Amino acid sequence: MVDGSDATQRVIFIVSDHTAVTAEAFAHSLISQFDGVDTMYTRRPFIDTEEKVDAVVDEIDGVAASKARPIVFSTFNDPALQSQLQDTDGLVIGLYNESLPQVAAELGLEPSKRVGSYHGIGDATRYQLRLDAVDFALMTDDGLGTDHYHRADLVLIGASRVGKTPSCLYISMQYGILAANYPLVREDHNELGLPKTLEPFHDRLYGLTIEPRQLHAIRRQRRPDSPYSDYEVCKSDVAWAERLFTSRGIPYLDTTSRSIEEIAATIMDERGLTRRID
Amino acid sequence: MVDGSDATQRVIFIVSDHTAVTAEAFAHSLISQFDGVDTMYTRRPFIDTEEKVDAVVDEIDGVAASKARPIVFSTFNDPALQSQLQDTDGLVIGLYNESLPQVAAELGLEPSKRVGSYHGIGDATRYQLRLDAVDFALMTDDGLGTDHYHRADLVLIGASRVGKTPSCLYISMQYGILAANYPLVREDHNELGLPKTLEPFHDRLYGLTIEPRQLHAIRRQRRPDSPYSDYEVCKSDVAWAERLFTSRGIPYLDTTSRSIEEIAATIMDERGLTRRID
Repeated sequence: MVDGSDATQRVIFIVSDHTAVTAEAFAHSLISQFDGVDTMYTRRPFIDTEEKVDAVVDEIDGVAASKARPIVFSTFNDPALQSQLQDTDGLVIGLYNESLPQVAAELGLEPSKRVGSYHGIGDATRYQLRLDAVDFALMTDDGLGTDHYHRADLVLIGASRVGKTPSCLYISMQYGILAANYPLVREDHNELGLPKTLEPFHDRLYGLTIEPRQLHAIRRQRRPDSPYSDYEVCKSDVAWAERLFTSRGIPYLDTTSRSIEEIAATIMDERGLTRRID
Repeated sequence: MVDGSDATQRVIFIVSDHTAVTAEAFAHSLISQFDGVDTMYTRRPFIDTEEKVDAVVDEIDGVAASKARPIVFSTFNDPALQSQLQDTDGLVIGLYNESLPQVAAELGLEPSKRVGSYHGIGDATRYQLRLDAVDFALMTDDGLGTDHYHRADLVLIGASRVGKTPSCLYISMQYGILAANYPLVREDHNELGLPKTLEPFHDRLYGLTIEPRQLHAIRRQRRPDSPYSDYEVCKSDVAWAERLFTSRGIPYLDTTSRSIEEIAATIMDERGLTRRID
């Protein structure tokens, strides 16, 4: 570390001979466990030749010379490229270094050096399932296409802007699950029960809720001067939805301090859903 | 391994005190490097007490007793739970075992034991960016909302069903990028140029293409008896789109053997886009 630089500010490199998606997810999940680190992520995907590794090594060394030592997360299918990368002044964490030989020994197989593409569109079944699930989520978004509900694995319900649409899209893309969503709207507040459309699907329902303050902020950004974004309206929408979930025994989740990844994993777990794609 | 069981068939456990998303992505990317392994994935997220770890250990040991030794990928924020899990007959690969202490030493910080939630909806800016991007992708899907193109970071173009919609949704969700998509339709084939709507956005365009056989299979599933899914039509749609990309200098990618993750990472890289969310 060079004198005067800030030890808590770190450049994090993500380097891979493929998409770098795995290394990136790993880096985020690991770094997030440290509070008060000011990070800057630099992604270098598709680094699949010696020349490209050389260029990245130079880049890392450049940062190391002028700032706090960078931390480098890497996944290389080709161990030669990984060793080449180790030769920098950064702290290099090669995610496959230990685990790939362990798994190879366990399986009694050699890893293929071929890069990536573990589930291409060429894998037609998986691709088709994923596409179907995304199609389904779009077709049944926001109360549309209720005539398709007989195919649904899951129907998310909740007030407007609690996060139903992104959650459905994520679940469809990530798990291949057929996920619809249905908004609980103000006009229905007088009904004590569930909207009639939803009754036959009671066992596929899952509720989302959110802190009224947060909902207020989100709605205000969307429609600043509408009664819809009024704080009191947000409060009443949320309270009504939660009463409905409780009275009808519908499991639900507060999305306020959760990421979409967490929301999706929790729903899958609590509704006992099995992913359709691996 | 018990006599008579098939060495290449493996149960892969994914265990975490949080969503298990990181461990799952890692397991897939590592296992995919071995050809001819017949895997069955078993996910156990939110294993956050000693009792829950005990139950998973029993489950793993049960599999180990009757089948090939299971491989266990795990991420635990709490090292005590991780050690408890190590005590099974499976091959346990604790993803944080080596890397967490390394990073802690490098940063001179202790990891917080608090579980997960590294980017909750409580992180309003990030959540809002992601939501905006998903909204944008939906609003500008399939040639809609072209009046919003001035805000677009990216406009995907290509024949119908080459994968534009899922790619846009993934890019918006994963990177916070504002991604529109516009279908190149048969009626326009006589035009030699780009649809006029797209002209002002030439430097944000990116083309997708696909093997005609694959497109044929995808379209046939959607509309079995339509001219649209005829193989010759698929071939001509693809050929025309590729000629257009080439003649107008629009970068493009064949999606046939690529996953959505790969397509997204390649586009980000080739269009020089920087993610809006970390």
